[in-house]
Amino acid sequence: MIRCEGVSAGIKRSGALDLALIDLGRPVACAAVFTGSQAAAAPVLVSRAAIADGQARAVVINSGCANAGTGAVGLANAERMQRAAATRLGCGVENVLVCSTGPIGPQLPIGLIETAIGEMGLSSDAWEQAAEAIRTTDTFAKVAIARFGELTVRGMAKGAAMIRPDMATMLAVLTTNADVEFEVLDQSLRDAVTPSFNSLNIDGCQSTNDTVIAFATGEVAGDVATIRRLMAEVCMELALMIAKDGEETNRVIRLKVIGAASAESARHVGKTIADSDLVRSSFYGGDPNWGRILQAAAVSNVTIDTSAFAVAYEGMVVAEGGCQVPYDPEVIRRRLRGDFDLEVRVGWGSGTATVITTDLTPGYVEFNGAPS
Amino acid sequence: MIRCEGVSAGIKRSGALDLALIDLGRPVACAAVFTGSQAAAAPVLVSRAAIADGQARAVVINSGCANAGTGAVGLANAERMQRAAATRLGCGVENVLVCSTGPIGPQLPIGLIETAIGEMGLSSDAWEQAAEAIRTTDTFAKVAIARFGELTVRGMAKGAAMIRPDMATMLAVLTTNADVEFEVLDQSLRDAVTPSFNSLNIDGCQSTNDTVIAFATGEVAGDVATIRRLMAEVCMELALMIAKDGEETNRVIRLKVIGAASAESARHVGKTIADSDLVRSSFYGGDPNWGRILQAAAVSNVTIDTSAFAVAYEGMVVAEGGCQVPYDPEVIRRRLRGDFDLEVRVGWGSGTATVITTDLTPGYVEFNGAPS
Repeated sequence: MIRCEGVSAGIKRSGALDLALIDLGRPVACAAVFTGSQAAAAPVLVSRAAIADGQARAVVINSGCANAGTGAVGLANAERMQRAAATRLGCGVENVLVCSTGPIGPQLPIGLIETAIGEMGLSSDAWEQAAEAIRTTDTFAKVAIARFGELTVRGMAKGAAMIRPDMATMLAVLTTNADVEFEVLDQSLRDAVTPSFNSLNIDGCQSTNDTVIAFATGEVAGDVATIRRLMAEVCMELALMIAKDGEETNRVIRLKVIGAASAESARHVGKTIADSDLVRSSFYGGDPNWGRILQAAAVSNVTIDTSAFAVAYEGMVVAEGGCQVPYDPEVIRRRLRGDFDLEVRVGWGSGTATVITTDLTPGYVEFNGAPS
Repeated sequence: MIRCEGVSAGIKRSGALDLALIDLGRPVACAAVFTGSQAAAAPVLVSRAAIADGQARAVVINSGCANAGTGAVGLANAERMQRAAATRLGCGVENVLVCSTGPIGPQLPIGLIETAIGEMGLSSDAWEQAAEAIRTTDTFAKVAIARFGELTVRGMAKGAAMIRPDMATMLAVLTTNADVEFEVLDQSLRDAVTPSFNSLNIDGCQSTNDTVIAFATGEVAGDVATIRRLMAEVCMELALMIAKDGEETNRVIRLKVIGAASAESARHVGKTIADSDLVRSSFYGGDPNWGRILQAAAVSNVTIDTSAFAVAYEGMVVAEGGCQVPYDPEVIRRRLRGDFDLEVRVGWGSGTATVITTDLTPGYVEFNGAPS
């Protein structure tokens, strides 16, 4: 039985929900993927240690403060938050993971958090309430579910992008009732994260706090392929919700890179293209500006074959063999009024990958330029 | 005697100047630095070959078309442009370099260019006119000069950033009357380019056409240190002009990274910070948002010591020892109304570097989002 709660601990001055507890009821198989940042936040350090044995029972998450750039005090506070949850649940601290999201720099109001955790009720139908409590500037709570027979994978996430005022944190928690070994859970999670959260590029900013956690309660037997498929589906659905909710963005673009030496190379080129301000400005304008895509692809670390270079917007080819081909920009622009697909050939290899990105908008800059 | 001309060949539909010829009168020592893009434009390929012997006499430059992404036809056109200039000057094609800047994709109107080159006059006082002709969306022609005794270094450049509609090309031509060997000229140019043009980060976009060329006519003896100093001065002055003229940008920020293992590491971290949309949005807002700087620095490939991490805006410290220190954001914001200096400590090494960057503005996105 998974029980949750989301409450207002007073971390956010607005009084909005800002603290979530998700409890699996007993230690279960647990895998996680953390930020690669050298300045990993205190909760990431605490969670990495807690999960070293491949087991955990609960995760406590606050929004409104990242507890990053907070030094020794921050680390002690993350441990206090972990201890408060363990005390509330009557389990060992090593069974509790901790996540934080919000501005970098300020210390956690740990007294408020300890008090709130001590008073938290837990119910079996508060998944959405918990998802609500981990929001920062997300405009909607993000939950997803995938089922096959009795096998279930459930997920919640908070947005990756343009999180004012400091960061671009992506948090996600998945639970499944599947009976899987840690190794299978861990590999399934990593494989699910690669094409979804790790292929999502909204502003190129990896945060100090990015964390994806998966718990498996072991109640239902299931074949590995199905478990992997369901986890991949939930991660992709949550990733697309995050892209859709990118603040002040207008469009989601699925950028498929084909013809690379490997899928990894294709993903790298895709991310380089999706990182370019000039490319993303052209997405904003709905402009089939393939020259900017060539410019960006050609400065990635991956070798590309410029003589094979080709670009198609919504299936309409604008460049082929490294050169522009005749096309009617007005016809293409009419097709680029909303979300769109973009395909880029970078050679004749068999490596392909799809990156999910958004446009860069004046609103994004206004929003993130406003002093906090 | 250096002779130039800038004319309107009809490449730009507006009728503005779009073709420049700079002639040194005879083959002289010549060094150049070209784009590292894998999709180097046709004129870059032609110029690289022409300069292989460390000598050249002239450079012909057009604006209004990059001749990039143009395949075999583009290469043939760059060679025709080179041949037309060689014929006009009565020298071998191997003595003529070629540069182009403008949209990627379209082919050069080579007939118009050949006709215009054939009719070009050349005069000894047309340096500014030539600088005018290499402009794309620069709001002013960029020329600089440095002197020490009779020794002179002169330069012209066109802007790096936000060149609508396709690219971010930076072109610069330097001439000096110094009597230097190719090796000294080449090393002096590379050393001058590193802290100036190669430390300029406006939108993180390296173009298919970036080129910096230096000619030395050998008329005046001079010590190597002086020549290097004058070249460095001219390159830095031109780089700052380019930053100042970044379209739709409001501020120039000098970002100094200190405490890195090497100058190269420091420059790499600085560029990573200056590449962050969230950081550059905070520059736009004049917001001392050090958390975004930590976030960006911590994902560069360079190892940083987060416990030493410190940030100062205009000399006012906001973070030290990896943590925020008390400061009055209003006081700092008042000091961040225009251009400003930013210092970031990433460890206790002796490597330092300064990167020149600008803010990211809503106007930039509007400008580059508008279909061409």
